[in-house]
Amino acid sequence: MPLPVIVLVRPQLGENIGKAARAMLNFGLTDLRLVDPRDGWPNPDAGPSAAGADCVLDEALAFETLDAALFDCNQVFATTVRPRDMIKEVVGPQEAIKRTRALSGAGGRTAFLFGPERSGLDNDDIARSDVIVTVPVNPSFSSLNLAQAVIILAYEHFQQELGDTATPADTNLMPAPKEAVTGLYGQLEEALEPREYFMPEARAYLMKRTLRNILDRAGFTMQEIQTLRGMIKHLLRVPK
Amino acid sequence: MPLPVIVLVRPQLGENIGKAARAMLNFGLTDLRLVDPRDGWPNPDAGPSAAGADCVLDEALAFETLDAALFDCNQVFATTVRPRDMIKEVVGPQEAIKRTRALSGAGGRTAFLFGPERSGLDNDDIARSDVIVTVPVNPSFSSLNLAQAVIILAYEHFQQELGDTATPADTNLMPAPKEAVTGLYGQLEEALEPREYFMPEARAYLMKRTLRNILDRAGFTMQEIQTLRGMIKHLLRVPK
Repeated sequence: MPLPVIVLVRPQLGENIGKAARAMLNFGLTDLRLVDPRDGWPNPDAGPSAAGADCVLDEALAFETLDAALFDCNQVFATTVRPRDMIKEVVGPQEAIKRTRALSGAGGRTAFLFGPERSGLDNDDIARSDVIVTVPVNPSFSSLNLAQAVIILAYEHFQQELGDTATPADTNLMPAPKEAVTGLYGQLEEALEPREYFMPEARAYLMKRTLRNILDRAGFTMQEIQTLRGMIKHLLRVPK
Repeated sequence: MPLPVIVLVRPQLGENIGKAARAMLNFGLTDLRLVDPRDGWPNPDAGPSAAGADCVLDEALAFETLDAALFDCNQVFATTVRPRDMIKEVVGPQEAIKRTRALSGAGGRTAFLFGPERSGLDNDDIARSDVIVTVPVNPSFSSLNLAQAVIILAYEHFQQELGDTATPADTNLMPAPKEAVTGLYGQLEEALEPREYFMPEARAYLMKRTLRNILDRAGFTMQEIQTLRGMIKHLLRVPK
């Protein structure tokens, strides 16, 4: 049963990485991944604030890109507020953890993305997620810090683990690991680029993000992705 | 509908008081009370770490004793682990907040006690509470800091407020404000002391705590306490 992965995207202060590690371990989470941490990794500032959760820091992996960090994750939640220009489902922590546990019961891995301290996740990060999880807070004082956001999700997970067991998700419907979605997207982009799909140039960026978003939201299974990739390959052939 | 009161008992660092205030306001709680803060009150170290939750600090009241701080509270939860030498019910955060909201629906006020950073609540503090609330944590890494403990309870409260409404408790069964229990206890102690009840001297302390504990656990209503006090007064009379 894979436990949730905590992914800190472009974290700024080592101290906050340490605090996040501590919050994770308080509630039994240990898989910490860092995407492009500002001050590199390992970071000597992380240890002291982990207050003993060194094992989490020692095992933490740093990745250059978010796609790389999510390679083996079947479901990705972005912790943020609802974005204005993207269609994503938004759920609360309880529902997010319910889905996490249902997937985990079938052997699937879920990642939670947390953005940089100051700015939060950007739209490209959010586009990589399947669903947005928003912690409902006091609307007139909503500045949750990184470790607090982490601890609330870790707490919710631990609580539900202690409670009654979730119905495991149907293994036949397990969304493929994100590595497979990235592969599918890459195949498409590679095929579309020379076919002048991403035009005008000024809109290319947004068009790519939208495409990737569609692939993520679809929740394709591995089998489906293999089928799609074969199909796309065929589409690219010159008709006889 | 009274919101939960957060009572920090003998807090040590002003910084942690500020962080607790921030955690409270994130989830809409504003009634902060301090019992015998180590460095006095107000404390200039609290402001910066409150990160904007100054309104909570400005309104925070400091009390010399826990009894004084709880004067208008009808229900008191101690955040701690199960004590070895005291009979108290132990619940998790969800159940604690469920009861808090049920009581609040009937106009009752609930306090959550948090102990000093290093040592936690002592047995005398715990004796003043009706029920213990324990946040279930990773048994091999259980060091929750003060602000994290506060935020988990505040989060749980906010979540349940957003969810379906709790059935309000029966106003006729509302436990009396603690001021009334303290009054009842005081009446008894005053009567028992000269009657050499608290003997031998070495055991007096424990006997008093046990007595107070019994009165708290009983959850007497105001009406019941008034009846009891009248009854005790009569008990003290010399029989004709």
